[in-house]
Amino acid sequence: MAYSMEDRAQILFEALPYIQKFNRKTIVVKYGGNAMISAELRQAVISDIVLLKLVGINVVVVHGGGPEISDMLKKIGKESRFVNGLRYTDAETMDIVQMILCGKVNKDLVSMVEALSGRAMGLCGMDGNLIQAKKLDEGGLDYGLVGEIMDVDPQPIQDAIDAGYIPVVSTVAAGIDGNKCYNINADTAAARIAASMQAEKLLILTDIPGLLRDVKDESTLISSLRVSEVPVLVKAGVISGGMIPKIDCCVEAVRSGVSGAHILDGRKKHSILIELLTDSGVGTMIY
Amino acid sequence: MAYSMEDRAQILFEALPYIQKFNRKTIVVKYGGNAMISAELRQAVISDIVLLKLVGINVVVVHGGGPEISDMLKKIGKESRFVNGLRYTDAETMDIVQMILCGKVNKDLVSMVEALSGRAMGLCGMDGNLIQAKKLDEGGLDYGLVGEIMDVDPQPIQDAIDAGYIPVVSTVAAGIDGNKCYNINADTAAARIAASMQAEKLLILTDIPGLLRDVKDESTLISSLRVSEVPVLVKAGVISGGMIPKIDCCVEAVRSGVSGAHILDGRKKHSILIELLTDSGVGTMIY
Amino acid sequence: MAYSMEDRAQILFEALPYIQKFNRKTIVVKYGGNAMISAELRQAVISDIVLLKLVGINVVVVHGGGPEISDMLKKIGKESRFVNGLRYTDAETMDIVQMILCGKVNKDLVSMVEALSGRAMGLCGMDGNLIQAKKLDEGGLDYGLVGEIMDVDPQPIQDAIDAGYIPVVSTVAAGIDGNKCYNINADTAAARIAASMQAEKLLILTDIPGLLRDVKDESTLISSLRVSEVPVLVKAGVISGGMIPKIDCCVEAVRSGVSGAHILDGRKKHSILIELLTDSGVGTMIY
Amino acid sequence: MAYSMEDRAQILFEALPYIQKFNRKTIVVKYGGNAMISAELRQAVISDIVLLKLVGINVVVVHGGGPEISDMLKKIGKESRFVNGLRYTDAETMDIVQMILCGKVNKDLVSMVEALSGRAMGLCGMDGNLIQAKKLDEGGLDYGLVGEIMDVDPQPIQDAIDAGYIPVVSTVAAGIDGNKCYNINADTAAARIAASMQAEKLLILTDIPGLLRDVKDESTLISSLRVSEVPVLVKAGVISGGMIPKIDCCVEAVRSGVSGAHILDGRKKHSILIELLTDSGVGTMIY
Amino acid sequence: MAYSMEDRAQILFEALPYIQKFNRKTIVVKYGGNAMISAELRQAVISDIVLLKLVGINVVVVHGGGPEISDMLKKIGKESRFVNGLRYTDAETMDIVQMILCGKVNKDLVSMVEALSGRAMGLCGMDGNLIQAKKLDEGGLDYGLVGEIMDVDPQPIQDAIDAGYIPVVSTVAAGIDGNKCYNINADTAAARIAASMQAEKLLILTDIPGLLRDVKDESTLISSLRVSEVPVLVKAGVISGGMIPKIDCCVEAVRSGVSGAHILDGRKKHSILIELLTDSGVGTMIY
Amino acid sequence: MAYSMEDRAQILFEALPYIQKFNRKTIVVKYGGNAMISAELRQAVISDIVLLKLVGINVVVVHGGGPEISDMLKKIGKESRFVNGLRYTDAETMDIVQMILCGKVNKDLVSMVEALSGRAMGLCGMDGNLIQAKKLDEGGLDYGLVGEIMDVDPQPIQDAIDAGYIPVVSTVAAGIDGNKCYNINADTAAARIAASMQAEKLLILTDIPGLLRDVKDESTLISSLRVSEVPVLVKAGVISGGMIPKIDCCVEAVRSGVSGAHILDGRKKHSILIELLTDSGVGTMIY
Repeated sequence: MAYSMEDRAQILFEALPYIQKFNRKTIVVKYGGNAMISAELRQAVISDIVLLKLVGINVVVVHGGGPEISDMLKKIGKESRFVNGLRYTDAETMDIVQMILCGKVNKDLVSMVEALSGRAMGLCGMDGNLIQAKKLDEGGLDYGLVGEIMDVDPQPIQDAIDAGYIPVVSTVAAGIDGNKCYNINADTAAARIAASMQAEKLLILTDIPGLLRDVKDESTLISSLRVSEVPVLVKAGVISGGMIPKIDCCVEAVRSGVSGAHILDGRKKHSILIELLTDSGVGTMIY
Repeated sequence: MAYSMEDRAQILFEALPYIQKFNRKTIVVKYGGNAMISAELRQAVISDIVLLKLVGINVVVVHGGGPEISDMLKKIGKESRFVNGLRYTDAETMDIVQMILCGKVNKDLVSMVEALSGRAMGLCGMDGNLIQAKKLDEGGLDYGLVGEIMDVDPQPIQDAIDAGYIPVVSTVAAGIDGNKCYNINADTAAARIAASMQAEKLLILTDIPGLLRDVKDESTLISSLRVSEVPVLVKAGVISGGMIPKIDCCVEAVRSGVSGAHILDGRKKHSILIELLTDSGVGTMIY
Repeated sequence: MAYSMEDRAQILFEALPYIQKFNRKTIVVKYGGNAMISAELRQAVISDIVLLKLVGINVVVVHGGGPEISDMLKKIGKESRFVNGLRYTDAETMDIVQMILCGKVNKDLVSMVEALSGRAMGLCGMDGNLIQAKKLDEGGLDYGLVGEIMDVDPQPIQDAIDAGYIPVVSTVAAGIDGNKCYNINADTAAARIAASMQAEKLLILTDIPGLLRDVKDESTLISSLRVSEVPVLVKAGVISGGMIPKIDCCVEAVRSGVSGAHILDGRKKHSILIELLTDSGVGTMIY
Repeated sequence: MAYSMEDRAQILFEALPYIQKFNRKTIVVKYGGNAMISAELRQAVISDIVLLKLVGINVVVVHGGGPEISDMLKKIGKESRFVNGLRYTDAETMDIVQMILCGKVNKDLVSMVEALSGRAMGLCGMDGNLIQAKKLDEGGLDYGLVGEIMDVDPQPIQDAIDAGYIPVVSTVAAGIDGNKCYNINADTAAARIAASMQAEKLLILTDIPGLLRDVKDESTLISSLRVSEVPVLVKAGVISGGMIPKIDCCVEAVRSGVSGAHILDGRKKHSILIELLTDSGVGTMIY
Repeated sequence: MAYSMEDRAQILFEALPYIQKFNRKTIVVKYGGNAMISAELRQAVISDIVLLKLVGINVVVVHGGGPEISDMLKKIGKESRFVNGLRYTDAETMDIVQMILCGKVNKDLVSMVEALSGRAMGLCGMDGNLIQAKKLDEGGLDYGLVGEIMDVDPQPIQDAIDAGYIPVVSTVAAGIDGNKCYNINADTAAARIAASMQAEKLLILTDIPGLLRDVKDESTLISSLRVSEVPVLVKAGVISGGMIPKIDCCVEAVRSGVSGAHILDGRKKHSILIELLTDSGVGTMIY
Repeated sequence: MAYSMEDRAQILFEALPYIQKFNRKTIVVKYGGNAMISAELRQAVISDIVLLKLVGINVVVVHGGGPEISDMLKKIGKESRFVNGLRYTDAETMDIVQMILCGKVNKDLVSMVEALSGRAMGLCGMDGNLIQAKKLDEGGLDYGLVGEIMDVDPQPIQDAIDAGYIPVVSTVAAGIDGNKCYNINADTAAARIAASMQAEKLLILTDIPGLLRDVKDESTLISSLRVSEVPVLVKAGVISGGMIPKIDCCVEAVRSGVSGAHILDGRKKHSILIELLTDSGVGTMIY
């Protein structure tokens, strides 16, 4: 807090090689969870993103918004039905998903970027048809309007970058099988977008410190992990539960050409800056 | 319906001078009301817009969404309070306005354009800070988060046009006085956007045939009107009630450099094409 | 003639998918015969072309001008000599051919496009060396300055398109074997130009309804034809006489990558618009 | 003829400052008369022009073609009628003028440039509507289709330059008063084109050595002349007869911003190179 | 040294508004004195410059090199003669000046930028004729090849910036009065370059803390100073001796449109970063 | 000297095909030796280069400066030590090399180009890291800071060409093995630059007429030589001594894609123009 100006200069100076490393590269940030709910953390995340943009890094923000959706459903007295662990998305629910993600969460993020003198453009999978999906068909079950991503066309995102904006993308997809749109998983969408843009990094902000060997002991954090080591850790139960799909997204991104995918703790202030612009990694990197 | 191919060719041929006239020009369409509620009319309006884009006219769609907002407020059991005829917009209402306009109506329109093989990008006043507003202060009354437009920066709209998209703009404004955003009048927003882009035309789609001398008799339609003739018609009571602010928007647009502002009947199929690409004007033109 | 404005709008609306289909594509129109002699048909053909340009289609006009050449030769009292069915082109005849095609027919077409508010640039095979030919050597006979196309360099045509013009091309070729220029067959030139530009379509305007199974019965029109079916129809005598070289041009164009080549009836008003912008094909398509 | 290689290098070297002086500038060459009829002179003029283009000077060739027109009229047995010294241009004559200028002379020049590995594009006043004229109305007399230039739009010429071509322009104008086209004076057209392009130089190639104080004595050549000195020389009879309109064109060009207008002897080989690239002026410069 | 990663992130975050402020702006850094002699300080200055470039600021380095010149003159046994306090620059001295500045100091700086992964291009006043001077004529005295700047053409500097380089400029000027080149004052050159580029800032790195009210007491630093206050401080003797010409350069730059000119202590590590990217100013700002 | 203007024009005219041949091509000129020492020859060489640039040829000048380096070393009383025939380059000598080449010779050449109204930009191997070298390790001997070229990145040269300058390159290389910079052979550097740019020609200016079969008899000049003939001539002793490395450079350039490499006599005025713009070759071409 009471840094001397020499400290400040020294630290800026030490960030130089990291800034050079990511210059003109694309970084996809999956933003969600608690880092999105606390106003203070939100401010920290968004200012990190504005800073990265300013030092020449092309940041793309991809967001979900589960809690806000649940709140709204409660508000209109809509009860949720679950199929195989996934929320069944009927037409009315889909409307709420679309409204909350594209109308509320997205534009609030845009608004925060602009308030920090950044320039943002809010998009969803329907703008320029950028995320195309069809009805999820898994195990012969009907999940309603839950979609499976068939294709990502990064052109609208690239157009926004080329015009100088930070694209902020809601994970609602355009339907290509007759339905207008689909509810899609935000981690998967972020991974597919990162892959389609041949991004340098995919950063997934979560509510945990990263992958822990012992979930009760933060000192057992696995700071980096090769894609090839994943199956062993799944077998050993180190990667389990909700961590499995997240790690799967990381693996898919890396296999599609993204240099590194990170599980970061979004509850830690400036975790993005720490990860990208210092030599202290936080969280777990899959590469 | 049973047009011969010769008829078709002849009619296309007769559209030539109109297409030439508007080539590379900007047309702002204010879209709302019943033309937005009927699925069939919506299809007709959107396909007109896609066609105009394709023949080289830069169309910008500006939309409101009053009925959808009212439906949603009812759904969450929110009662409306009115101040001086305007709905008082508290924070919760503003959230619903933003969600419905930016998340539901906007993205549904984008989706319809894309379904017709057009390319659309949905924006709101917060994207790139394109519409900036402060709290409305009229007659010393408090309307809550109802905003008054202070500035329009057409750059984000122009960026979308330059990248080949049809911009679809929700009329929610970024606040410049501490509040995050404001609910603004859609007709006014459309007029201000048209003025800021030096558009060729402003087309306001309504639920009436245009300005009628005798509101009960459609044959008394005033098909064109000089800006200077407006005060007389107001005095005479021909322009009255809800028509006054609409005509005022037209007058403001024309005074700011828009060549013509039109009150069109959105309930009439393809009224946009008829107005722009044939020599039969429909509705009332202020110039 | 007495179409309602609703009819007009409906028809424009129905043209939308066709306009989308050909947007930014190149269409080569071989123009000649009676459609060129009647002032009324000429007006219809040229306005079709101006309209196509305006809706984003890159039209290239390739023209001959046999009747005008014959008239001029008669005027100066020049008798024609024929070799193997081809008019022997001596130096004096070549001068007349060049003058009529490049000076009269070409500039008259340019003038008509401009009169309809289109922008045209008249070119011949010598401008930018766009069509290169050598002396035709067929069967050991001497045809004078009748040339065989050796190469087409579409750059000057593309330059004119890029600068916003409708290129109008006279079929006089630059000689690459010592002679200054050659008289070349206009159908062949159009086919070669279409091939060199990888055009979407080649439209050959003729004085017949298309390929008829029975030349006396228009109801026997063959509306589409695969390239592979041509030899059978030649053998069967359905394709015969002057039709053989025309169909050969179409076949060559399609084999070189043009998507479809059409024999259209130039005597039918707006046959180009009907063919391209409605679902009623007129004439015969080879594909 | 037997220049040593050192001579050659020395002379090239001495041209350096002149090439620098005209680099990226526009030079309009009015080409006509005997320099156009002799094959050897034609070759010299055209190679001069190709060389200028190559050393970075934007040359525009403007040509007439009186003798060729007369020959053709004779050939078709057309008798000429004169009104006030100007040939009355009826419709049939106009057709011949257009054919000869745009079809024969223009394309022959284009062909010569291409034969010398230059790149040329032949244009006339109708291409892109570059020269616009109306019926000449002088002294209440009827000259038929003799036109008076109303406007010059240099865009098509500039487009050809930008795409790397030497524009070659026939002096036939598009009619803007109902007639399709007009016969116009080539010197005037060249002057107007030079003015509209803010050319550095206008070079008028003629069959005389320049302006002579004593027409019988070439040693009395006036090598340079201020615009303000012209009236005195007209009064004194030094500028008289056919020289008056030529000098008037030069005066008009200079008054409109052209730096210098030259009357050059086209019968002298390489007079253009001598004028532009050596310090020996030939002919008369008006400035 | 032992900053936590949270400290680092916090400090980077706090630099955000400063980086935004100077984004796309031009900063001219006059580099010389002790900050140039100590290897450690040189490293710090150059890395600051590379960092600024990376965060989107266009830095231009202007350097002198007095001490290195003196060393070399001593080495070749050349004695210095002084005229009115200025070193008389004979032809031999001028050669040494040129060699040391353009060949040694300049390329060493370029080399250091490149070693830090920046991209630099070394220029002097003769490259593209960017600094033009004539013989200094002050008080009728002869200073030899000491020059007075007549004009600065920033094009070569801008070309280097546009191609992505950090321009490093030696203060040797091209002579425009017959002499090949001139020795010029580096502070003046930096001020003139800043003015010609309408730079946002001119930073003059010196060996003093800034302008002190009492030269023996650093706590009397004047941190900012209006141009209008300068004469008073000169009169009062606060600005005196070698400080006068430095302040004059600052005043000239500010009067010509530079927003602020700073006298910075180059002996303080990262003084450039501190000045530009923190809210602690160091040194004296004239504005 | 007393060329008539007709002579001049004729000679310019005869240069046309040569100018066309090299238009938009890159020519690398290695400049050194006596042609660099005589003021008159220097003027001739530089004006040739300015002329080539002006007629659309991209000339790159690569220079050494042995004699000036020796003079300076003598001046500071530095004795030279030789290792295996190469001057041992200690740090002090390297400083002198850098100063003389980058500071004196380079900027003097730049200055001469500018004086002839050309535009030049002086570069060395350190600018943009264009020539990268490591310590020469030949026969286990230590040559000090003599470098071996490891890579050439032509981007900075190309950037200068694209911005309209004649790049003038000093042959000092950036070290990539810890040392700041290296002294490199200028012929080799020129050959490597020509290869990296896929230049049309490499011209090495020397102090001999070219390769002579009998070194005492200039009439035995070998005017052209295939790469495959070189080994035989080396064996026969025709290529020997200092000629071997020069020819090796030529061979390497040609093998890397340069069309022809020439050994030219720099003592002959305008030998570059003679070689490129006339049909009299001077010197020896390896191809």
